[in-house]
Amino acid sequence: MAMRSLKWVGMLLALTGALTSSEALAKPLALVGGTVIDGTGQAPIPNGVVILDGDRIVAVGRVGELSPPRGATVVDTKGKYIIPGLMDANVHLFLDVESEVLIRYDGHYEDLILEAAQVALKNGLTTVFDTWGPRQELTAVKRRIAEGRDQGSRIFLAGNIVGFDGPISEDFFVAAAPVIGQAYTDRLNAMWVQGTGRDLLYLAPETVGERIAKYLRESPVDFVKYASSGHVNEAFIAFSPASQKAIVDTTHAASLTAQAHTTSIESLRLAIDAGVDLVQHCDSTGPVPIPASTIAMMVDRKVACAAMIQTQDHLGWAKTHNRRPGFSEAAGITDVNDRNLIRAGATLLLTTDSGVFAPSSYASPILAEMLSAPDLPTRMGDAHFLWLKAASELGMSPMDALQAATSNIAKAYGKSADLGTVQPGKLADLVVLNADPLANPANYRAIAMVIENGAIVDRDKLPVRPVLTTPAHP
Amino acid sequence: MAMRSLKWVGMLLALTGALTSSEALAKPLALVGGTVIDGTGQAPIPNGVVILDGDRIVAVGRVGELSPPRGATVVDTKGKYIIPGLMDANVHLFLDVESEVLIRYDGHYEDLILEAAQVALKNGLTTVFDTWGPRQELTAVKRRIAEGRDQGSRIFLAGNIVGFDGPISEDFFVAAAPVIGQAYTDRLNAMWVQGTGRDLLYLAPETVGERIAKYLRESPVDFVKYASSGHVNEAFIAFSPASQKAIVDTTHAASLTAQAHTTSIESLRLAIDAGVDLVQHCDSTGPVPIPASTIAMMVDRKVACAAMIQTQDHLGWAKTHNRRPGFSEAAGITDVNDRNLIRAGATLLLTTDSGVFAPSSYASPILAEMLSAPDLPTRMGDAHFLWLKAASELGMSPMDALQAATSNIAKAYGKSADLGTVQPGKLADLVVLNADPLANPANYRAIAMVIENGAIVDRDKLPVRPVLTTPAHP
Amino acid sequence: MAMRSLKWVGMLLALTGALTSSEALAKPLALVGGTVIDGTGQAPIPNGVVILDGDRIVAVGRVGELSPPRGATVVDTKGKYIIPGLMDANVHLFLDVESEVLIRYDGHYEDLILEAAQVALKNGLTTVFDTWGPRQELTAVKRRIAEGRDQGSRIFLAGNIVGFDGPISEDFFVAAAPVIGQAYTDRLNAMWVQGTGRDLLYLAPETVGERIAKYLRESPVDFVKYASSGHVNEAFIAFSPASQKAIVDTTHAASLTAQAHTTSIESLRLAIDAGVDLVQHCDSTGPVPIPASTIAMMVDRKVACAAMIQTQDHLGWAKTHNRRPGFSEAAGITDVNDRNLIRAGATLLLTTDSGVFAPSSYASPILAEMLSAPDLPTRMGDAHFLWLKAASELGMSPMDALQAATSNIAKAYGKSADLGTVQPGKLADLVVLNADPLANPANYRAIAMVIENGAIVDRDKLPVRPVLTTPAHP
Amino acid sequence: MAMRSLKWVGMLLALTGALTSSEALAKPLALVGGTVIDGTGQAPIPNGVVILDGDRIVAVGRVGELSPPRGATVVDTKGKYIIPGLMDANVHLFLDVESEVLIRYDGHYEDLILEAAQVALKNGLTTVFDTWGPRQELTAVKRRIAEGRDQGSRIFLAGNIVGFDGPISEDFFVAAAPVIGQAYTDRLNAMWVQGTGRDLLYLAPETVGERIAKYLRESPVDFVKYASSGHVNEAFIAFSPASQKAIVDTTHAASLTAQAHTTSIESLRLAIDAGVDLVQHCDSTGPVPIPASTIAMMVDRKVACAAMIQTQDHLGWAKTHNRRPGFSEAAGITDVNDRNLIRAGATLLLTTDSGVFAPSSYASPILAEMLSAPDLPTRMGDAHFLWLKAASELGMSPMDALQAATSNIAKAYGKSADLGTVQPGKLADLVVLNADPLANPANYRAIAMVIENGAIVDRDKLPVRPVLTTPAHP
Repeated sequence: MAMRSLKWVGMLLALTGALTSSEALAKPLALVGGTVIDGTGQAPIPNGVVILDGDRIVAVGRVGELSPPRGATVVDTKGKYIIPGLMDANVHLFLDVESEVLIRYDGHYEDLILEAAQVALKNGLTTVFDTWGPRQELTAVKRRIAEGRDQGSRIFLAGNIVGFDGPISEDFFVAAAPVIGQAYTDRLNAMWVQGTGRDLLYLAPETVGERIAKYLRESPVDFVKYASSGHVNEAFIAFSPASQKAIVDTTHAASLTAQAHTTSIESLRLAIDAGVDLVQHCDSTGPVPIPASTIAMMVDRKVACAAMIQTQDHLGWAKTHNRRPGFSEAAGITDVNDRNLIRAGATLLLTTDSGVFAPSSYASPILAEMLSAPDLPTRMGDAHFLWLKAASELGMSPMDALQAATSNIAKAYGKSADLGTVQPGKLADLVVLNADPLANPANYRAIAMVIENGAIVDRDKLPVRPVLTTPAHP
Repeated sequence: MAMRSLKWVGMLLALTGALTSSEALAKPLALVGGTVIDGTGQAPIPNGVVILDGDRIVAVGRVGELSPPRGATVVDTKGKYIIPGLMDANVHLFLDVESEVLIRYDGHYEDLILEAAQVALKNGLTTVFDTWGPRQELTAVKRRIAEGRDQGSRIFLAGNIVGFDGPISEDFFVAAAPVIGQAYTDRLNAMWVQGTGRDLLYLAPETVGERIAKYLRESPVDFVKYASSGHVNEAFIAFSPASQKAIVDTTHAASLTAQAHTTSIESLRLAIDAGVDLVQHCDSTGPVPIPASTIAMMVDRKVACAAMIQTQDHLGWAKTHNRRPGFSEAAGITDVNDRNLIRAGATLLLTTDSGVFAPSSYASPILAEMLSAPDLPTRMGDAHFLWLKAASELGMSPMDALQAATSNIAKAYGKSADLGTVQPGKLADLVVLNADPLANPANYRAIAMVIENGAIVDRDKLPVRPVLTTPAHP
Repeated sequence: MAMRSLKWVGMLLALTGALTSSEALAKPLALVGGTVIDGTGQAPIPNGVVILDGDRIVAVGRVGELSPPRGATVVDTKGKYIIPGLMDANVHLFLDVESEVLIRYDGHYEDLILEAAQVALKNGLTTVFDTWGPRQELTAVKRRIAEGRDQGSRIFLAGNIVGFDGPISEDFFVAAAPVIGQAYTDRLNAMWVQGTGRDLLYLAPETVGERIAKYLRESPVDFVKYASSGHVNEAFIAFSPASQKAIVDTTHAASLTAQAHTTSIESLRLAIDAGVDLVQHCDSTGPVPIPASTIAMMVDRKVACAAMIQTQDHLGWAKTHNRRPGFSEAAGITDVNDRNLIRAGATLLLTTDSGVFAPSSYASPILAEMLSAPDLPTRMGDAHFLWLKAASELGMSPMDALQAATSNIAKAYGKSADLGTVQPGKLADLVVLNADPLANPANYRAIAMVIENGAIVDRDKLPVRPVLTTPAHP
Repeated sequence: MAMRSLKWVGMLLALTGALTSSEALAKPLALVGGTVIDGTGQAPIPNGVVILDGDRIVAVGRVGELSPPRGATVVDTKGKYIIPGLMDANVHLFLDVESEVLIRYDGHYEDLILEAAQVALKNGLTTVFDTWGPRQELTAVKRRIAEGRDQGSRIFLAGNIVGFDGPISEDFFVAAAPVIGQAYTDRLNAMWVQGTGRDLLYLAPETVGERIAKYLRESPVDFVKYASSGHVNEAFIAFSPASQKAIVDTTHAASLTAQAHTTSIESLRLAIDAGVDLVQHCDSTGPVPIPASTIAMMVDRKVACAAMIQTQDHLGWAKTHNRRPGFSEAAGITDVNDRNLIRAGATLLLTTDSGVFAPSSYASPILAEMLSAPDLPTRMGDAHFLWLKAASELGMSPMDALQAATSNIAKAYGKSADLGTVQPGKLADLVVLNADPLANPANYRAIAMVIENGAIVDRDKLPVRPVLTTPAHP
């Protein structure tokens, strides 16, 4: 073993070295000496070796048992920790729909989306699931990244939340409608809605199914998210149970996963009954905690729960800031739900609803107070670290938390074949940390290296063309 | 026969005569010579005799076969038409919740309610079902009328629509909230909500059931109306199917009928599935007509459909006045639904949502345009005549229309033992018309006499203490 | 002297005794033994005697020099302080124009006005000048009090502020307009405007003069207040200089005093130039202190300055509560102005803008924050005490402060013949205090007795019919 | 003469010919044979010759009396009419401050301004006076045009209207403030305000004068426009008379002309008294016509009146569209004022308040109704033609109208040395018409050629880079 080590010396690269993406792709890459936490839940592999070839992981083993192939570039990861690329089950690469942002960047939304995907990647998120945004622009950026034309977190996208109207509508920010132009409002809303808006709520279930099938044929998305409850009107149910089932079945028939937006215990239960694969903010149920029977349903049916777990610092703030009626009370209930879900063994997913906010939005009448909160849970690039901190505070085991941020998400989204673990055959998405994430969730921030599709990411360059982010942004 | 007729001559009373209520109650009353249309759907009885004693009908027959009892007061109804007292399945005795009205008459809502009940009675409505209003004030007036302390249409009441917040809330007119005082708003809303507001939407079905059971024990109402869909947010569903069933079952367990507010085809279907006895504005389904299968369900399960049938004049106006997005389109769909429901043989009920509007409201920014519409379908005292006209325009048979305004309503509300037909044993609620209502629905307006509880109503004196109504009011 | 004192013993009355108004009017009243501070500015008269007969003061002297007339009722005021009845140069007996109050008490505004006048009297204000309110209702109450039909502070009134529209207009609270009925809004505004609204701003000066002359002939008021600056739009000037002069001249021609509403240094200067007798809130000049030259003008021309002097506690609050842009800054400038005005020897008048607020208004979105301020300067019954405290804090001499609250006001309003001092021939309006007001302004609160028109006021009974005030109200 | 004509034949150019600007500048240009209406008011010169050299007019005469210099390019204008370049005393090259436009073109306002200047030039306006807009951007475009880097109407600019806050303020469109970002709003408003906003209204006159002097030193403008009345608050007066005088005197001391924004007869009179050179929309006085004495003042003091004369078609519309209270009434008064001003011989100036509107604004809630009006008087490129039509309808003599659009404006703005007439020594700004404008004002639209600074404008190419204008735009 000592001998072999010596042989490698000449090839060892400092993590901050000059290895470029193209070099990395050209020949195999071997990460040697670190502790591998592979995301399957099994014990960490000390003194591990991970060998990448092309965009795949080809071997995982221990020093002494597995050698890097001839010609491989060897990276010394001694004292470091290798984990699967992090994932976020719920981001909005275009989140800041303040009027100023919408109009100012009209025609340039792809730039904003790409910037957000780069902020994500820089912070270890190699895959993000975008659950509400302009479908065509998101798809364009997804392709630019997938085809290597741009760097950024791998994107899967839902487009609209089926059943909701666009950003400047009663489902979101209706106050802007009389101020910004009607023609523009209509065009803008259409970018989100893509023919799947609130009018679907009026239809018969079979018609809803037909509309979704047509939509999936003509307007490709990676998964479907629909409204089980209202957004602004969060006490209400959106689609009827039969319509929810029609959406889920049609989505499954197209080999996609289906998820629901829920904000009450009944909209949550209906979504589970409809057969969704995962529930977004399953833990947000207004003033009433989730009944034990519903938690049991989630566990039994293995419906993944994308939970908006927040740090105690943030909850403390939320409980004293009644931003709207019931806000602070709801924060307490979310906390109760999260503890109950963890205790019951529900499959939790790291989910943040995060995005990049324009500097101007920090002075916006709509967003300013929220954006001033401690441990702000929705700022892209920081939010996933806070989630992991919060999970730890709630008593989730470190290994469960790591899986919630990796393999659980891959599984819930039907992407386990390629993503979520450090195992041979998987896409080579890895994060190398300078400290043990299982010892302290703060160590997720100690990123030494991010590898996406087998290529080492030059994090210092991201985001490449900052638009909304300032140097101070994470 | 001729002989007996002669004997009666001395006792004959002009319909406009001096018979007072107390006299009427003192001795039997016989209506002799008119055509009796008894509300059962059977052929009219020409030359009929109806004998009342106390507050009941004691006999119905033909001249020559049935004689008035000795000492009876005989009313000559030759050339006239005797029908059951008219009913309205959906009124709001306190409808005008404009800020000015609410505040001005604070503490005096009973006066407004009584006035509306008198406007109704004056126009032939001997029974009205109030489906949304302040429970305690409505109950007080109901009792004043029931106990003979005041005259007015017999009242059955629901109080709140379970699941909705009060008049100055997001479910109704939220714009007034920042202008009128918070303390007053809270107190006012509580008069309507009575503990059955929007917070129930968040609860588990069994908890909803418990809350309703407690409510029915502590806050007596005559029937329960709940929100199957939103009011302002009419595309959304309010209670989940399981919660709807819990409400209906609890209501039935308390021996009351249950009805739902629905505004979409799915909220309609869910309500039927939940087992409601009737559906309010079953024909209001936004932009989508009711599927044939749902109409068939209504017919099969004999769920009564309280339909907002409107005259073609009004529809013509509505179709060109897009008061809010979709308004004019929805008017056309309502028309389609009504025709389909009639064709399918659904049990329709006359329902008007009507009330008395303050003169000031005709200049209100919220109501002015609506109140200027031709054949305004929501003005108490006129609305039921328009409904009968509209039903005729849609091709409903004259006899069906009469039953929709009488026996169908009694049956749907579980009041057939006492109300709805001109049959022995029933309460003596009658309307005597000067012309045949089966020949022309306009003849319902030709009221010669209204009898409630066996007493002839002095219509000229109603309303006794006009508050909102002006002399010009019907 | 001792002898004479003995004679009186049998006639001495406890201040809290049973003397009724009618008894008081029946025979002369002598206040014996107290210190008289007569409001002329001369030194207090220890051991004083004040003799009242009917509604007038007939003699003022010292014990030993002046004896009560035979048959007089003698009140022992030893150890007490007799001052002129207090005055307030600026109240609004109907101030709370929140929608709820306006509508709820529509038709009963006189009750609210009388209540406020009684709150004032109870707290030592024997005369108030109402500078904005519904002219006819105020006049009715003024007469009821003047004719002895009701008790209350003597009222002089302006009606509208000429140039402004009514309470529910852009000059005051326009937000309520779309919520409350238009017909009602129009009627309400007309009660204030009385034909002297904003439309006058458009007219030529001579036309303005003609309109005012006609108004004064047809709609009697006691003095005229006009808009030199805007109210909501306080940076703007309302009437042009020539129009201001036309208003003042016309008013003087009708033997009335004229005053202006000013909120900037230029509107203040224009008003002085126009010849006004007094300026309301002369010290409110937004972000800019009054130039020395303008203060000199006020002093030279003896234009009285009704200053909104506020306590340091209140100013401290105001400086940290930026209720609207510039609010806190303006509070600091008012303080500077007040100090400069005092230093320059300007004739200051106690002025409070005070009124009675409904309990509901303390939760109103418009008023709640303001009403929660410490040393709230606009609450009728308390505000004048705070003014005297504030004046002391600013270094105004105790005697000047007393005159600002009495003789200065009488003089500025042209009422010196009857009011403002404790001198023979004046109306018998007196306040008897238990402690020396010159020693400590807090002693103005130590009211032992209030005499109006020669009659002792039964303060415990006031207000006689509380509407807006609660027991806790001062 | 015939001989000389023959000599010219070879050099004659069709008006639509290939002469480029650079050629035009290279050698003298002679317009030969047309009727010259020189703007001085003297009779037209038939068969005229106008000789240009460089950017100046060097000679004006008649064929036969004046020959083109050797080497001159000769343009045959037989049958045509040569008039001075048209002017507009009041345009807004950046007028459309809808939120969508503001944000979308943030950073590109110069493009919008240049586009508007090109629309103006294309339609015969060789000089425009911009009376409200962003100073720095306007100045930049003015220079680009003045230095020949871009083509466009010659610009003189005021920047802000002194005393008003920016576009998103209570002086203009405050409703947008809560919707668009505060930081952006602040930055935007500052572009207009340039330190001369509403806060000046609070200052003492001498301080106002100092502020203006400093402003003129540091922020060059071509003339000063200030608020004599409010904009949104049009009944109010803005600056006090003394402050108005300080502004005018300071402006004159800087050798600039001063003008006022007035909207009432008193603000008009105050401005005249303050010594302004011209008054913008002198004819807009709300509900009251200008008194004869004030018209006489304008005439005597030769204060130019920039009148918003509108066509009878437009007035007819305005009188039936009460867009806001008093709108239709005010339209009638403007008409009365215009007739009186013409009759009295006031110096009227063509003034339009015109600008270019974005296509989106035609659907804007603020502008849509106004922009749909017939003979819309504020659309750049069309508005001045409508003014000339309207002036004719009111009976203004054709020659007076032509001077109102040319020499009167030059004189009022102190630009007579260079502009306003077709006289030797003046800048060579000319319009050649195909038909006689004195015969029919519609003939102003029959533009054959526009010459600015001696160069023939290629009108077909304007605007060079359309941003807001569509092909359909004039």
